[in-house]
Amino acid sequence: VEEGHNEEARELVSPLHPADIADLLELTPSEQRGEVAAALGDLVGAEVLSELNDYVRDDLIDALAPEQIAEFAGELDTDDAVAIIEDMDSEDQQAVLDALAPEDRAAIESALSYPEESAGRLMQRDLIAVPEHMSVGQVIDYLRDNSDLTSDFWEIFVVDEAHKPIGTCQLSWVLTCPRGIAISDLMKREQTLIPVDMDQEEVALRFQKYALISAAVVDGSGRLVGMITVDDILHIVQEEAGEDVLRLSGAGDGDINQPILMTVRTRLSWLIVNLGTAIFAASVVGFFQETIAKYVVLAVLMPIVSGMGGNAGTQTMAVAVRALATNQLTSSNTRRNILREFRIALANGSVLGCLIGVAVGLIYQNHDLGIVIAMAMLFNNLVAGLAGILVPLTLEKAGVDPAVSSAVFVTTLTDVMGFFSFLGLATLWGL
Amino acid sequence: VEEGHNEEARELVSPLHPADIADLLELTPSEQRGEVAAALGDLVGAEVLSELNDYVRDDLIDALAPEQIAEFAGELDTDDAVAIIEDMDSEDQQAVLDALAPEDRAAIESALSYPEESAGRLMQRDLIAVPEHMSVGQVIDYLRDNSDLTSDFWEIFVVDEAHKPIGTCQLSWVLTCPRGIAISDLMKREQTLIPVDMDQEEVALRFQKYALISAAVVDGSGRLVGMITVDDILHIVQEEAGEDVLRLSGAGDGDINQPILMTVRTRLSWLIVNLGTAIFAASVVGFFQETIAKYVVLAVLMPIVSGMGGNAGTQTMAVAVRALATNQLTSSNTRRNILREFRIALANGSVLGCLIGVAVGLIYQNHDLGIVIAMAMLFNNLVAGLAGILVPLTLEKAGVDPAVSSAVFVTTLTDVMGFFSFLGLATLWGL
Repeated sequence: VEEGHNEEARELVSPLHPADIADLLELTPSEQRGEVAAALGDLVGAEVLSELNDYVRDDLIDALAPEQIAEFAGELDTDDAVAIIEDMDSEDQQAVLDALAPEDRAAIESALSYPEESAGRLMQRDLIAVPEHMSVGQVIDYLRDNSDLTSDFWEIFVVDEAHKPIGTCQLSWVLTCPRGIAISDLMKREQTLIPVDMDQEEVALRFQKYALISAAVVDGSGRLVGMITVDDILHIVQEEAGEDVLRLSGAGDGDINQPILMTVRTRLSWLIVNLGTAIFAASVVGFFQETIAKYVVLAVLMPIVSGMGGNAGTQTMAVAVRALATNQLTSSNTRRNILREFRIALANGSVLGCLIGVAVGLIYQNHDLGIVIAMAMLFNNLVAGLAGILVPLTLEKAGVDPAVSSAVFVTTLTDVMGFFSFLGLATLWGL
Repeated sequence: VEEGHNEEARELVSPLHPADIADLLELTPSEQRGEVAAALGDLVGAEVLSELNDYVRDDLIDALAPEQIAEFAGELDTDDAVAIIEDMDSEDQQAVLDALAPEDRAAIESALSYPEESAGRLMQRDLIAVPEHMSVGQVIDYLRDNSDLTSDFWEIFVVDEAHKPIGTCQLSWVLTCPRGIAISDLMKREQTLIPVDMDQEEVALRFQKYALISAAVVDGSGRLVGMITVDDILHIVQEEAGEDVLRLSGAGDGDINQPILMTVRTRLSWLIVNLGTAIFAASVVGFFQETIAKYVVLAVLMPIVSGMGGNAGTQTMAVAVRALATNQLTSSNTRRNILREFRIALANGSVLGCLIGVAVGLIYQNHDLGIVIAMAMLFNNLVAGLAGILVPLTLEKAGVDPAVSSAVFVTTLTDVMGFFSFLGLATLWGL
């Protein structure tokens, strides 16, 4: 598309929504991205930047001067500006902050002072807060008369003299009521207040649970310091749930836009850990070389036992990791759910054990071999079921993200126990 | 908690938000759930029902009379009522519909006429639509004077004479403008219209991409028939992304609240498919029994090659499935991304091949064995990388959900090719 016809490209792109321009840039091969962005000129503005995939944005931002980034950041809401600036290294970050207008700088610096992925980073400072003695009419007049207020809000927060939120009022309620009604009679007093240091995953769960559109963020002393709106939460829910898929598989946080070298590094380090555990599992097989030498069929069948354990363990683990991430699995139902997984494993293991036992017994005309593989299959399914739930629970308790490291423990356990139970039983049985 | 002290339980629970009461019921063991719900009586109302996990709700609803369900459904928005009714079997559904007030019945019946998981099921019919000639003041008066209008809305839709939406107006814009301004000067003409038969996953992607709070739903002729609000979308994003984790692992759609028999059935059918492919992979090993009998160490090492291929394939597959689900992987960048995965596999395979080759060569003091396993490892990594992206792409093209069935194809391929390449090379090499 881009072979000198810059003018035409600009004409084609200009009617698009910033999110669509961002998509277009993401689809452009990374070598040509800088060129395309340069050709589009000011069409690639602040809003396009804030819609871009993290990796693609880093790519483009590296090419920009701090002053230009500062200009973009000044146009955006605090939360979007912070999202752009927080990933830069500290020197570049300082250069951008220095180039910002004082009030923007103060807002962004205070947001950056909160921990990453906390409510403080997500919130915006521009919000509408009114005292409780106002009437509906006074609120409307206040909004009409103060043109410097934000015009992007969905709810009005009612605060007391100490600036602590005491109620929330949907705009639709304000609009459907006569001017004379007091705002304090209209507002909803039950509110979901978000502490400024709450983790964004927890914030997202609150939004989902209580179907919130916006929520007040309060500091340690309970004063209103900002608000979070649901459109930012939608991104987080999508990201966090998607992260679990990637992390469970050992692909880290990498999507298809991640620079290839970083992808290789992330995935390789995970694969090397797995290589270590695979060698460990293989060494278990090494103990039984004599048995295998006597009866080579064991080598043919042993991957079935270990592999099926891995499959069953992965099922349980995925359910447990999701249940932990969505707060469904709590201390009050842990024991019940461990028992539940044990019973499922018992049922599945029995059926699979019978199936493989009968099949092997018939194919190799050897009942003993059938019995041994059936027992090993049942045993390894029980290991898989228990490991699938206990490993994520233990990691969560230890403060480690269960999505990141559960898989390596579970599959190592099912591999080792699969080989050990099958080959060990075969040796004991004298096959 | 519940041993006759029903009054006290009611007192404890009554100040809670419906979503919290729903959580409480979910945490209650399923045997006691009916009892607890009965003890709480009318505290378990329509809103609590609509917040409940699907499986838990089915449990409770089975115990209710159609008239009672109809009463609950009447209190809810169309979309929430539909969510409750759509999972019932058709006889019970009809009984509930018959017991509904005529206008509620018409709304719910028309929602049920749209396909499951489509925009038509998600939307609510109560919305605010105004003609474009109105001024801000007239809109406010219209809202104040018509008390039968919904008071739950975030945007006003502006429609032409044919009831086609021509613009959207945030309530905050209405509130911050003088009464005299024409609504048509205030509204935003660029809108994201949702066709009534659009799949909910696609709807969720639009909401996320354009940061929507609510959106107009239009029928085939472009007329406004309903609206979807972001709070319903949040649930869908959470569900759909979580589903991918569960489906990739073969756990189906089951969470920890699914009845245990259903869980066993879902997981077992997946495990039986895997048992078939595991037996198939094992039969490949069977071809090389003679080679293994001569050199048993091959049996010890072969699971390393197949297992590492499985790990690498799972990484690529997870990234590809997420990229497909979020529309990042499209026809325009497919070739580039296949090439990308090939290069990553080449890099990872080379490193892993060298590591295992040197280790095996040293441990077993056998250079040939080291070279064979290194080559097999590289080859199987390439198979894994290509299968990890090509399998999901092919399934998506064939109209099958790649999250459901990718894993079985990818791991079968990496198992079979792992065994085949390692044992085959060893045979050729004359080990």
